[in-house]
Amino acid sequence: MKRPSGRAADQLREVRITRNYTKHAEGSVLVEFGDTKVICTVSVESGVPRFLKGQGQGWLTAEYGMLPRATGDRNQREASRGKQGGRTLEIQRLIGRSLRAALDMSKLGEFTLYVDCDVIQADGGTRTASITGSMVALIDALKMIKKRGGLKNGDPLKQMIAAVSVGMYQGEPVLDLDYPEDSAAETDLNVVMTNAGGFIEVQGTAEGAPFQPEQLNAMLALAQKGMDELFAIQQAALAD
Amino acid sequence: MKRPSGRAADQLREVRITRNYTKHAEGSVLVEFGDTKVICTVSVESGVPRFLKGQGQGWLTAEYGMLPRATGDRNQREASRGKQGGRTLEIQRLIGRSLRAALDMSKLGEFTLYVDCDVIQADGGTRTASITGSMVALIDALKMIKKRGGLKNGDPLKQMIAAVSVGMYQGEPVLDLDYPEDSAAETDLNVVMTNAGGFIEVQGTAEGAPFQPEQLNAMLALAQKGMDELFAIQQAALAD
Amino acid sequence: MKRPSGRAADQLREVRITRNYTKHAEGSVLVEFGDTKVICTVSVESGVPRFLKGQGQGWLTAEYGMLPRATGDRNQREASRGKQGGRTLEIQRLIGRSLRAALDMSKLGEFTLYVDCDVIQADGGTRTASITGSMVALIDALKMIKKRGGLKNGDPLKQMIAAVSVGMYQGEPVLDLDYPEDSAAETDLNVVMTNAGGFIEVQGTAEGAPFQPEQLNAMLALAQKGMDELFAIQQAALAD
Amino acid sequence: MKRPSGRAADQLREVRITRNYTKHAEGSVLVEFGDTKVICTVSVESGVPRFLKGQGQGWLTAEYGMLPRATGDRNQREASRGKQGGRTLEIQRLIGRSLRAALDMSKLGEFTLYVDCDVIQADGGTRTASITGSMVALIDALKMIKKRGGLKNGDPLKQMIAAVSVGMYQGEPVLDLDYPEDSAAETDLNVVMTNAGGFIEVQGTAEGAPFQPEQLNAMLALAQKGMDELFAIQQAALAD
Amino acid sequence: MKRPSGRAADQLREVRITRNYTKHAEGSVLVEFGDTKVICTVSVESGVPRFLKGQGQGWLTAEYGMLPRATGDRNQREASRGKQGGRTLEIQRLIGRSLRAALDMSKLGEFTLYVDCDVIQADGGTRTASITGSMVALIDALKMIKKRGGLKNGDPLKQMIAAVSVGMYQGEPVLDLDYPEDSAAETDLNVVMTNAGGFIEVQGTAEGAPFQPEQLNAMLALAQKGMDELFAIQQAALAD
Amino acid sequence: MKRPSGRAADQLREVRITRNYTKHAEGSVLVEFGDTKVICTVSVESGVPRFLKGQGQGWLTAEYGMLPRATGDRNQREASRGKQGGRTLEIQRLIGRSLRAALDMSKLGEFTLYVDCDVIQADGGTRTASITGSMVALIDALKMIKKRGGLKNGDPLKQMIAAVSVGMYQGEPVLDLDYPEDSAAETDLNVVMTNAGGFIEVQGTAEGAPFQPEQLNAMLALAQKGMDELFAIQQAALAD
Repeated sequence: MKRPSGRAADQLREVRITRNYTKHAEGSVLVEFGDTKVICTVSVESGVPRFLKGQGQGWLTAEYGMLPRATGDRNQREASRGKQGGRTLEIQRLIGRSLRAALDMSKLGEFTLYVDCDVIQADGGTRTASITGSMVALIDALKMIKKRGGLKNGDPLKQMIAAVSVGMYQGEPVLDLDYPEDSAAETDLNVVMTNAGGFIEVQGTAEGAPFQPEQLNAMLALAQKGMDELFAIQQAALAD
Repeated sequence: MKRPSGRAADQLREVRITRNYTKHAEGSVLVEFGDTKVICTVSVESGVPRFLKGQGQGWLTAEYGMLPRATGDRNQREASRGKQGGRTLEIQRLIGRSLRAALDMSKLGEFTLYVDCDVIQADGGTRTASITGSMVALIDALKMIKKRGGLKNGDPLKQMIAAVSVGMYQGEPVLDLDYPEDSAAETDLNVVMTNAGGFIEVQGTAEGAPFQPEQLNAMLALAQKGMDELFAIQQAALAD
Repeated sequence: MKRPSGRAADQLREVRITRNYTKHAEGSVLVEFGDTKVICTVSVESGVPRFLKGQGQGWLTAEYGMLPRATGDRNQREASRGKQGGRTLEIQRLIGRSLRAALDMSKLGEFTLYVDCDVIQADGGTRTASITGSMVALIDALKMIKKRGGLKNGDPLKQMIAAVSVGMYQGEPVLDLDYPEDSAAETDLNVVMTNAGGFIEVQGTAEGAPFQPEQLNAMLALAQKGMDELFAIQQAALAD
Repeated sequence: MKRPSGRAADQLREVRITRNYTKHAEGSVLVEFGDTKVICTVSVESGVPRFLKGQGQGWLTAEYGMLPRATGDRNQREASRGKQGGRTLEIQRLIGRSLRAALDMSKLGEFTLYVDCDVIQADGGTRTASITGSMVALIDALKMIKKRGGLKNGDPLKQMIAAVSVGMYQGEPVLDLDYPEDSAAETDLNVVMTNAGGFIEVQGTAEGAPFQPEQLNAMLALAQKGMDELFAIQQAALAD
Repeated sequence: MKRPSGRAADQLREVRITRNYTKHAEGSVLVEFGDTKVICTVSVESGVPRFLKGQGQGWLTAEYGMLPRATGDRNQREASRGKQGGRTLEIQRLIGRSLRAALDMSKLGEFTLYVDCDVIQADGGTRTASITGSMVALIDALKMIKKRGGLKNGDPLKQMIAAVSVGMYQGEPVLDLDYPEDSAAETDLNVVMTNAGGFIEVQGTAEGAPFQPEQLNAMLALAQKGMDELFAIQQAALAD
Repeated sequence: MKRPSGRAADQLREVRITRNYTKHAEGSVLVEFGDTKVICTVSVESGVPRFLKGQGQGWLTAEYGMLPRATGDRNQREASRGKQGGRTLEIQRLIGRSLRAALDMSKLGEFTLYVDCDVIQADGGTRTASITGSMVALIDALKMIKKRGGLKNGDPLKQMIAAVSVGMYQGEPVLDLDYPEDSAAETDLNVVMTNAGGFIEVQGTAEGAPFQPEQLNAMLALAQKGMDELFAIQQAALAD
């Protein structure tokens, strides 16, 4: 088996995280997994959704979008179609759940964090890049809340979160699928983990043949290997 | 650990599959997983979506809905809200992907199968009940196509599909969560499998603490145990 | 003239009302007029719409839907189309007006009753079945409000309501049209009455030739005859 | 009983029908029932909806709207709300059904007639004014089709149609309710008839107390009386 | 160059402003620029939008619509399409901005003025007719507020506003384009001015060849000439 | 008068045009006017909209969007609101009209060019930056069509187009307003020109006091000055 990119089976694409990518948001990151490029911003607003009012805790919600020509063929703009598609909603629900797992909402206070992940160029793995990049933008946004006098009850950060895709490609498990692999993979598995090694989400789909328990375990092992590197890249970006 | 229902950790709820539940659809099943009740119909229409035209193959698509008062509190009717929610879209995409895995579309011919899963009473596990029940309705619909003179290229059925949820409840893996368990579970894992033992979908979410690889394996083992029973129940229903 | 079902001109289909059909709603009925089957639930919520706030009175509103394959051909799901059709809105407005006529809203107190009528199998007369069945679910919901300590100002029930369709079929008036009759009738007339014999709604439409005053009177007489039976069936169901 | 307007119980408001009210439409009428003013246009387009294609027959469809300040309080513009309300849909369905009853569609040929009824000032009875006025615009549109060389198979006009409301007001039947009567009436009954005296639609609603069979008959007799006058007014307008 | 209507290059169409055109609105005008006819109503409601609450000032907002057959070909009704088109939104934003320039909002008090411009017959220049006519309806609405006891802080009217289109037609500047000119013009320029001679809006679009600075100046001079006449027509209407 | 940025009254912000910014689109540019940053892509698709079919000519249409946090405060995502706002539609209509003026559609052939302008950071002047940047992306897209064997009838490019804003700020005309100026300007004027010095669009709005003819001329002169520089910057970018 040879990967289209020439990468080893357990090799991530080059991952770059650029902080302060745009100037208005409290947290703003450009995350690149190879040719996949996503702008992740975190915006802080006072107040929480109605179902949480008066409980003294915060909330985080995420939205995801793709520029119409982020992909090989142009997709119709969701704003002009008048609705977000099922894939978009599914991805933004995943991003939101994943990042909420990073926070102790009772320490955040009555703030709502809006995570916006906008794909400007897609080459596979946009949801995992979004989660990994937004985690860094989230840290910056928390710093900004603190700087403005918030977070009196301690640091709401419980753990770091990152995400990567793995899959079965030509019968073998591979790490961090790019688009040519993704569109030909037999199985596609997105994994979200904490820096302590626990799973937050595991979403595997057989695109062709069903996958077997031992394949699942092989893919999960690859994911864990990639995760160590992603957490290191996040730390390096935050140390700049 | 004691389950609210008093069931053993590896015990399914009582599962009932009633065929020919309504009279118009080519396949029509009422599936019950305990108090969760879903009407699953399969409708056959000539023709396929535009992206498949002229390729001589068929298609299957699924939609999911809940009656407004299928749940403890009334939910706003999606038809009057003017859109399907993210959860609905996510579930119907899962049902569609799962059932497409049962079929060889090139043998189906240019038919579209519409699977409609409508929850009339919800008590946890509606998506897994929907998949398990629709599989039986799908078999009935295929028989109807054959009876009407279709399926000249052989049987499109590749394999049976069923689904079940497992989870970590009070620190222990349990099979087939009902609503009281689901709303308190630390981890919720939906598993879709074939009758040959392969995975079609694995979707696990940590609702509270992250889950560990060995917990994942314990949950998957429980799912496989439940799956054997579900395939037997499907066969029994089809044998009637 | 021979009716497709073999019924006499003044004969209702077999009408069955099953109470407590689903477990969550305050009132829940399966109503069957022959092969027409509708789940009617009544949900009780505190509070009233804005236009009634602070007046100490209650409100009742109704919604109607059909499962996509309740009919001979599949209809597109209204939730995925993004709007309710004109026929749906017309029917749910009729159901709401009819059931509000049963109640003294000032005695209900500041509660809103949501009536949901969902057709799981259609064979003509879904709106009249919905009204007749919901009336029983409404009684059960009122009992539940009382049990929970509400209705301090006396019983809000003013009168029982039922509905039936009549029509001109092959030149003769017939009672309770089923689908084969409905689609071939010259005139279709829906009648909603009180158990004291007054009219709440009379909606007649000439599908082919105009109808004459004496035909209208003949149809109304048939409706009154059917109504007596429907009120008896409601009472029998409530007596169980 | 004294009517707010001082009219006799069986007296119509002054009804005026102004043809060629706007210049673009094939038929264009301003109809006034007292202070109720509706612009009714009939537009002719080649072709028919998909469900009628290739059958050699025509179609007629109607739409209804109100200017936001046609009423005492301003209503939100339906175009900016993003949908037509249930009342609007109900009325335009009624207008369409009523006018289709005037035509033999097989003689119309493959044309679609769009009837647009836009209320510029409302004072009760907008739906009945719309039907009565559109009937005249429809005649003008048919003449225009003929002038342009259509209608080779003979005149599609089967009969004239008109509509009027009647009701129970302060215990007595009255003809052609204006807004002050309409909002206080116990019963509101809209009647659509042919010039041969047959009923096309009868829609009666008890707003307060139920109405009795003899009241229904009294109201229908009043409607018939008004109808004779309305058909005369239509003829006078067409004779100009 | 000869204009299709035979008018001189600097000649307005006949402009008529009819006050109190409909009876419910606080201000109601029918404005006619030749065959272009627009009903302009101004409705007064207590309260202001959220972003202005508690600032003691008022607001004005405008909506624009066309009856489906106001034009040569029928346009789909925006209410049934489910959204207002880009052209509609652009025009109503222009009307709102223009009329807000007439008022000192701090003197208006916490009222919202809804301007509704509904075109019943279109022959070019509907937006400029709407602004010119609504200005008169606005004056009438202010008088009504005063009569009802409002406007304690003095007259909110700062200046009169009117609007007219000019354009390059067959190489020459012309005033007040009608539809045949508008659809053939090389340049279309809408001008909104105050009665003191200042510009509120200038919106010029080259439909064919680009326009030159000296052409722009020639068109603006024509607009100023027309404006003097429009302000006189407004005053004459208000003096009635 | 001192500009917040310290620029001279006739000084553009630093304008940068980066070609080939993303990899999938036929033309892809990042355009920066100071801190305003817009990704402009041009996508080429075979075929034209229905109203142009069979005429042998092409079409160009534009869409505009802003990332939710491109601005100082987060704006709700239009895709999740379910519709594009009036400002968005107005801007994308302007971009489309402006760029269509650059092309001879009969030489383009039956292709549709989709221009997508997505603002990733906003600091005033996003519409003028979008037009100026998209013009360059359009040239690149035309080259790509040619490379793929299209454009047999000669070069469809008629002229270059650029756009800039000017305004009255603290009583003086200034070129290329940034956000602090834009939000405080008395007049805001957007100008679209050709490289031959003609106007394509002139859109001026008095935000406070009306503007006078001589102010309009002073602003237009500034715009012409800026335009010369913008055409030079476009050429330099294209020469790379």
